Amino acid sequence: MGTSSLCSDHVRGRQVDFQAYLDEKRKLIDKALDEYLPQESEPPEIIHRAMRSALFPGGKRLRPILALAAVEIVGSDSQKVLPTACALELIHTYSLVHDDLPALDNDDERRGRPSCHKAFGEDIAILAGDALLTLAFDLLSRNGEMEGVKKEATLVIIGEIARAIGTRGMIGGQVDDLKSATESTKHVEKKAFKLEEVTQQQIESIHRRKTARLIEVCLKAGAILGGGSQREIEALSGYGQSIGLAFQIVDDILDAQGGEKREVTYPALFGLEKSKQKLAQLIKEAKSQLFIFGEKGKILEEVADFIMNRGI
Amino acid sequence: MGTSSLCSDHVRGRQVDFQAYLDEKRKLIDKALDEYLPQESEPPEIIHRAMRSALFPGGKRLRPILALAAVEIVGSDSQKVLPTACALELIHTYSLVHDDLPALDNDDERRGRPSCHKAFGEDIAILAGDALLTLAFDLLSRNGEMEGVKKEATLVIIGEIARAIGTRGMIGGQVDDLKSATESTKHVEKKAFKLEEVTQQQIESIHRRKTARLIEVCLKAGAILGGGSQREIEALSGYGQSIGLAFQIVDDILDAQGGEKREVTYPALFGLEKSKQKLAQLIKEAKSQLFIFGEKGKILEEVADFIMNRGI
Repeated sequence: MGTSSLCSDHVRGRQVDFQAYLDEKRKLIDKALDEYLPQESEPPEIIHRAMRSALFPGGKRLRPILALAAVEIVGSDSQKVLPTACALELIHTYSLVHDDLPALDNDDERRGRPSCHKAFGEDIAILAGDALLTLAFDLLSRNGEMEGVKKEATLVIIGEIARAIGTRGMIGGQVDDLKSATESTKHVEKKAFKLEEVTQQQIESIHRRKTARLIEVCLKAGAILGGGSQREIEALSGYGQSIGLAFQIVDDILDAQGGEKREVTYPALFGLEKSKQKLAQLIKEAKSQLFIFGEKGKILEEVADFIMNRGI
Repeated sequence: MGTSSLCSDHVRGRQVDFQAYLDEKRKLIDKALDEYLPQESEPPEIIHRAMRSALFPGGKRLRPILALAAVEIVGSDSQKVLPTACALELIHTYSLVHDDLPALDNDDERRGRPSCHKAFGEDIAILAGDALLTLAFDLLSRNGEMEGVKKEATLVIIGEIARAIGTRGMIGGQVDDLKSATESTKHVEKKAFKLEEVTQQQIESIHRRKTARLIEVCLKAGAILGGGSQREIEALSGYGQSIGLAFQIVDDILDAQGGEKREVTYPALFGLEKSKQKLAQLIKEAKSQLFIFGEKGKILEEVADFIMNRGI
């Protein structure tokens, strides 16, 4: 069999091609999501159509794949955490649907198609986001009933996820990002930040909460539900923190290269070159966390490279 | 000691005045909510101020009181389910904040004060609603860590609550209510119901999902977390279904008497007299479920009367 240094390797005795790994997991996740979501034909049809339209065809499914990979890296079977992995994708999707709303980012398009409120109306988009978030917690609780999954661990995960996406996590980051956007001075109670006042620490704090916390908790959830040791859980969480922040910097670099002029980003503050250095540093830090896993860490190394290299 | 036939009785050896019972529980709940909510001074301040402003001073706290009462009726200590009771109030509040949004009911006022989006802007109101819902699930999971609370039961409750407020419950009812409102024909994909097409079955289905499911699950959660028997859980759930529907009919009657002309309501379809008969019937059904609890059921009997009599 031919091997290319980047795209294939031996993991637990199986020949794994990285792209094939992503494709296989994506298929698993899409199939499970399709099972868990009410059919479009189930009344009230419009809300189920809106939810499915926001979820399918979907993006890379990075977050659930990270959860599944974390379960496998600590030596467990990822099939048994599919509901949790799907819940994490539902949460990501809810955040996109609400972010796109006119009162927030006011985006008419998402992945080349009309955004949820453009296709279904603002009322349905608000409720579809709410419903995706709600269904996520239903799936999380149902995962605790599956064989080989500890109820105690499931309960811990539910709390971890809720905190990662609450006002001390994702929502808090979104609020600070709103405040920092020049356009959002419309409301008298919000003081817009001045670019020069935004320090690296502040920008990192926003990115960590807005993007990295959810990615981190995907890995943590997989590690805990997979029965990982405290050391393994910490290593995977640390990896998640680093690639989560890296992920946001890549987004910002791509936006900057695409001509978008968002103010509170790494490239806007530090320039492209320094942003790329920071990115490389984060990817290095992420990989260093994988040391304890030996060969089994290879897939997540490739995920880190994949994040760094997408489009840059 | 003087006794009045309506307002006081012996429950488990204590002299309980119903209004005092409500006041005592309300205070407990308000104190716990204040503890669980991040302070207004915690960044990002605006979201925490918005969440607190939606929660305080608040309404009757009926939902959490029902949860606490259910725990007590099955013979357990209600203190240990305070986080769950508060979570149910957070969920109720999130639904009000999102319902009031311009894209939904477009209400500028809530309980005589500016609604959340009027006070804080639409963007913050959307995120504050999301944050209240998210914090609810954090509290639910944390309740499982308290002494005397079973983790398995907590996990069951999380699923029950998520399903009660999802598209097969509360959100589904909201969507059908949107569809049925004459004003919401603005979107081409939504067909407005004609009043004559709305049967009693349809209206009950909307009310049951939009209002009654959450009230029912408050009682169910209390019964399960309190360690009630299957028979007790079913009796309390049945009671919850009946008072939940009764609660919505009272709302509709009060609206009709106040001159509001909402179309898909009991009074609009059947007139005031028939609506009041239906209400009395539901209250009777609710009370009949309490038979198995004997004297301990007295508080919930009074709650049923309280719901029937408020303002009518």
